Amino acid sequence: MTTWNFSSGPAILPRPVVEKAAAAVLDFKESGIGVLECSHRSKRYEPVVASAEARLRKLMGISDEYAVVFVQGGASLQFAQIPMNILGQDDVADYVDTGTWASKAIKEAKLFGKVNVVASTKKEDGTYSSIPTGIKATPGAKYMHITSNNTIFGTQWKQFPDVEIPLVADMSSDICSRVIDVNKFGVIYAGAQKNLGPSGVTVVIVRKDLLGKVDRKIPTMLDYKTHIDNGSMFNTPPAFGIFVLDLVLQWLEENGGIPAMEAKNKAKAAKLYAEIDRNPLFKGTVDVADRSDMNVCFIPVNKEHEAPFKALGLERGFVDFTGHRSVGGFRASIYNAMPEAGIDAMIQAMQDFEKSLA
Amino acid sequence: MTTWNFSSGPAILPRPVVEKAAAAVLDFKESGIGVLECSHRSKRYEPVVASAEARLRKLMGISDEYAVVFVQGGASLQFAQIPMNILGQDDVADYVDTGTWASKAIKEAKLFGKVNVVASTKKEDGTYSSIPTGIKATPGAKYMHITSNNTIFGTQWKQFPDVEIPLVADMSSDICSRVIDVNKFGVIYAGAQKNLGPSGVTVVIVRKDLLGKVDRKIPTMLDYKTHIDNGSMFNTPPAFGIFVLDLVLQWLEENGGIPAMEAKNKAKAAKLYAEIDRNPLFKGTVDVADRSDMNVCFIPVNKEHEAPFKALGLERGFVDFTGHRSVGGFRASIYNAMPEAGIDAMIQAMQDFEKSLA
Repeated sequence: MTTWNFSSGPAILPRPVVEKAAAAVLDFKESGIGVLECSHRSKRYEPVVASAEARLRKLMGISDEYAVVFVQGGASLQFAQIPMNILGQDDVADYVDTGTWASKAIKEAKLFGKVNVVASTKKEDGTYSSIPTGIKATPGAKYMHITSNNTIFGTQWKQFPDVEIPLVADMSSDICSRVIDVNKFGVIYAGAQKNLGPSGVTVVIVRKDLLGKVDRKIPTMLDYKTHIDNGSMFNTPPAFGIFVLDLVLQWLEENGGIPAMEAKNKAKAAKLYAEIDRNPLFKGTVDVADRSDMNVCFIPVNKEHEAPFKALGLERGFVDFTGHRSVGGFRASIYNAMPEAGIDAMIQAMQDFEKSLA
Repeated sequence: MTTWNFSSGPAILPRPVVEKAAAAVLDFKESGIGVLECSHRSKRYEPVVASAEARLRKLMGISDEYAVVFVQGGASLQFAQIPMNILGQDDVADYVDTGTWASKAIKEAKLFGKVNVVASTKKEDGTYSSIPTGIKATPGAKYMHITSNNTIFGTQWKQFPDVEIPLVADMSSDICSRVIDVNKFGVIYAGAQKNLGPSGVTVVIVRKDLLGKVDRKIPTMLDYKTHIDNGSMFNTPPAFGIFVLDLVLQWLEENGGIPAMEAKNKAKAAKLYAEIDRNPLFKGTVDVADRSDMNVCFIPVNKEHEAPFKALGLERGFVDFTGHRSVGGFRASIYNAMPEAGIDAMIQAMQDFEKSLA
């Protein structure tokens, strides 16, 4: 049976990447030792980090004004590390609250400066189903933080806020899935485990002129300058994670880069949303304009259909396709590596389910 | 040709572990998806974290007074995270300076409280070759920090300081290599990439009563309580790293546990040091009583022999066996997974080198 991995993350990776990664665990570059066992300071491994950085710069169009580092701790550590590095205790930062991750980022930022929540789409029941519009920056604010795609609620910024201050964006669940203009951003950060690789490695793209302006003492490992000055090799990096990330970026290059990926992602999402809108048994949970191309959330119109459709999906080899506990229903996470055939399998199941009840 | 991986870390792993890890990258538990692609919240993956914790508790004899968490950032982040969690700004902590890593830990601790360096074996040239004795704790100090094994200089505490305050130990390079009494310690921490697994996962064993006593605000991801309360699953953990760590612990169990490993490690190290002492072409760099059983450092008596012995080692399939740049010469890192045959290969090379010059 074919398996379709709809997990929200760690998530499906391109099969050629998985096969190369497994082979390298056994033997890295015909060295007789595996990549997990290879010194990060060795001539075999060191080029991997530089390669990953170079590929990401080229794919995303990242200029020399920005540093690119690979760190640990996930986006959750960045929630604190970003304000620690660029927000003075008396400075103001704007935050937009569009979901669970945004609100966690807000909580951490408050430890380091003044936080102004300039917009929130939180509903009375605690969930979110839209992205705000017409946001204005607070005069004097250092940056505006957004979550570009909300993995849990399935919303996505289609147009980023048009403000004069740098945007700081958690792009964990849609980095490299669509073309963006990096120059609008002060910081872009992303846990790798959706579109870039396995969990345990975090990408941070930071405009260098934002650094060195706060007067607090930053622990060495949390200071971006440490990782910039040492090419992400101040201490032992998450070496295997960066290796897999480099393979994923190579796969992106070989498959048309980000523009090709964006076209494919838009087509995949549109096809699935069309079925959700057509099929009388299901409905979407998100405002149509704000629907994520990465995480497609939908619920059965009749709550009693949840269990039987789940059973059908399991029969069809669907993995991790149920919604987050706060939303319920179903969530198909369809990142870069999900082929159109996976979408077709989901649509087929929805149509077969409809027929079975007709 | 057989390859002998003497890397100081990331380092040799047991071959059965490497093979199981590679297989799981392709297919995890016959699920049709690989372990890198598997949701950390799935029923397939979640038991891995609990399993790793349970195995480590049993192998090391860790009581319920201690929490065990798997975090990110390596020992280098712990240098800051430990005092952040347990040292008040007006508290005193004792630190023993026995090498590069200890001095980095001292630097970070100074951000969070008063640091008293109660002993240092630093020499005029900046290197270290011994472990201090007869250390006394500062009255009122909260803890005494040591580095149980010094990867770079090849020294190791054979007897831990006999003090009334809790020891806090960086055991990155000798955890699970010898039997220790956990109850002497307030915190034990270790980057996994020597004896426990790949880089990117850090083990922290912390006595729970030490927590919650400082009044600073700790960022959520740096607060041990966050990880304790969430079973190391507050955010996406370094899932593959923990999976491999669990396999390594299983291998330890199947091979007699830590007592058997200690006996094997002592025998391996003794055999190699005996050759270093016998062979007129080489000499050790460390006080005999303080020689590490994990990282065996030695230099040629005649500096001109360095290049030809390095060439011979490469011919024999030795990987990463040269000394750290601050010491020079050679370093054979012979962690748990290094079989005695690797020691024999090194000794054979030393003896053949001697004969070639006779």
